[in-house]
Amino acid sequence: MSQDSSFYFPAPRAQRFCSQCGTPLTQIIPPEDNRLRDACGRCGAIHYQNPRNVVGVLPIWQDKVLLCRRAIEPRYNTWTLPAGFMELGETTAQGAMRETQEEAGAQIALGKLYTVIDVPHAEQVHFYYLARVLSPALYPGPESLDAAFFALPDIPWDNLAFRTVATTLQHYLRDKPSGIFPVHHYDIPAPRPE
Amino acid sequence: MSQDSSFYFPAPRAQRFCSQCGTPLTQIIPPEDNRLRDACGRCGAIHYQNPRNVVGVLPIWQDKVLLCRRAIEPRYNTWTLPAGFMELGETTAQGAMRETQEEAGAQIALGKLYTVIDVPHAEQVHFYYLARVLSPALYPGPESLDAAFFALPDIPWDNLAFRTVATTLQHYLRDKPSGIFPVHHYDIPAPRPE
Repeated sequence: MSQDSSFYFPAPRAQRFCSQCGTPLTQIIPPEDNRLRDACGRCGAIHYQNPRNVVGVLPIWQDKVLLCRRAIEPRYNTWTLPAGFMELGETTAQGAMRETQEEAGAQIALGKLYTVIDVPHAEQVHFYYLARVLSPALYPGPESLDAAFFALPDIPWDNLAFRTVATTLQHYLRDKPSGIFPVHHYDIPAPRPE
Repeated sequence: MSQDSSFYFPAPRAQRFCSQCGTPLTQIIPPEDNRLRDACGRCGAIHYQNPRNVVGVLPIWQDKVLLCRRAIEPRYNTWTLPAGFMELGETTAQGAMRETQEEAGAQIALGKLYTVIDVPHAEQVHFYYLARVLSPALYPGPESLDAAFFALPDIPWDNLAFRTVATTLQHYLRDKPSGIFPVHHYDIPAPRPE
């Protein structure tokens, strides 16, 4: 089997068949639960779904911030901090370092957890760590069109990928004069309809 | 269909059939990915899996902490802070309040995010908020055998449900004299084999 990349797609939230026995699912409120779940009337498996974590880094090299230009949807061709979905078996810190390697090919020393951002309409929680870049050599991976360092006054505010990226950078600019970088925890509200 | 509660079980991580088309799954490394995923050779759906968040509260009433005695596995009959899996569409704060209502029936005013704990061997991240209990009336739900207030010297350290509960309580005891409660972020290492 050697399908090309256009054949594959991430399974969406909507589930139609039981992952355990292949039977079509029904929606029920299970005993002692209080909301509808996808359940299998044949084998009894309940298919809970939960929010996902996005883990990333705010990497600094000589007062410049490392950003990646996205080679994938959503937000193709916009600039982002290196970040991606947390994987099984890793910590948020390990995931953030892995994403920095995969998207920018950058060598970093990870710093402290900096922003924790609830994004309920996207069913996500985002975590950004501070990091120090150890070498200016960058090797952007297949998910990035480019990776580059931006002096803080040159951050492309009008072309950033996500509000969690923009707000994390804003917190950094605000905290930098004091040199104190506490954990910032906040929510991103759902976008208003146009 | 009215199955009793013993019929149902949470679907485990191991997936055998495609949730989109019911076809048996195979494991492949998808194009431009770098690890094995459960994928469908018929429709192309890739079934990623990700860690889950557990959200809870450290609720205080007149210098006493509210704990619940678990009526469910794992750790049946041990004491826990009110907490549970984060649901789709809610923030970590909303989930923490919901779990407090479901497990203890307690009225609370939610405070700040207090601990963020990576538990990679359990494929989880735990979040605990500080909270002030508004009334001593408790109405434990079906997942709790009991809910009760403990003076801090009386915390049942030998019978707590999880290390994230114990360490969150330990941080609280340590921070209380100063009245300063910063966000604590740390990892829980895998338990050592006996």
